[in-house]
Amino acid sequence: MPAAIDLAQKLSLFTEHWTPKVVADFNGHDVMVVKVKGEFNWHSHPDTDDFFLVLNGRLTIRLRDAQGAESAVILGPGELYVVPKGVEHCPVAEEETHLVIIEPAGTPNTGDPATAVVKTRL
Amino acid sequence: MPAAIDLAQKLSLFTEHWTPKVVADFNGHDVMVVKVKGEFNWHSHPDTDDFFLVLNGRLTIRLRDAQGAESAVILGPGELYVVPKGVEHCPVAEEETHLVIIEPAGTPNTGDPATAVVKTRL
Repeated sequence: MPAAIDLAQKLSLFTEHWTPKVVADFNGHDVMVVKVKGEFNWHSHPDTDDFFLVLNGRLTIRLRDAQGAESAVILGPGELYVVPKGVEHCPVAEEETHLVIIEPAGTPNTGDPATAVVKTRL
Repeated sequence: MPAAIDLAQKLSLFTEHWTPKVVADFNGHDVMVVKVKGEFNWHSHPDTDDFFLVLNGRLTIRLRDAQGAESAVILGPGELYVVPKGVEHCPVAEEETHLVIIEPAGTPNTGDPATAVVKTRL
């Protein structure tokens, strides 16, 4: 039987940070939930946009343009942002923050397969 | 300056039902918000999965398999479902329900370009 995917229930199944869990497939993309806290690394994805939706908490996405100029987007609950393909970014969360992220299946979360976490499925 | 997309604020800008509004672009897809109430039509999308996330309210997605057998998924707030490519479905909402939906840009919402609404951008 098809079943709804309850994002809060999925998020209750783990505690670790920066380890996206796949909860659905969509057109070759992984739909994931993730808990984040602290600062991630600066990275970019040369081949894909990066979708962030905050469920609770607060996420700052630091951005750096091709000329090296920095800006930032601050997301609260119910807010989303798509980092365009190729744009350098660094997610930061002062408090634990819960997100939905969407990326093509197999995209390294750090931008580098050598340092990326393996995305498990819930 | 890049800015967060506040889904509730976007939803406050219109009142009509079944008219998706594009709020972001993601890898050739439209990220949309939509208000729904009542029953839509049975349709399918031969070339794309169909992403539904409920923000508030309650959505029933009736589903019909290739043998004609019916089932349904019921989504409350914070729940999502992806209707696989080619699967016949009919969304129904007894009360006004607010959704995020994601489809490739240009996908007819009814499954048929002749009856589809034009998706405007907010």
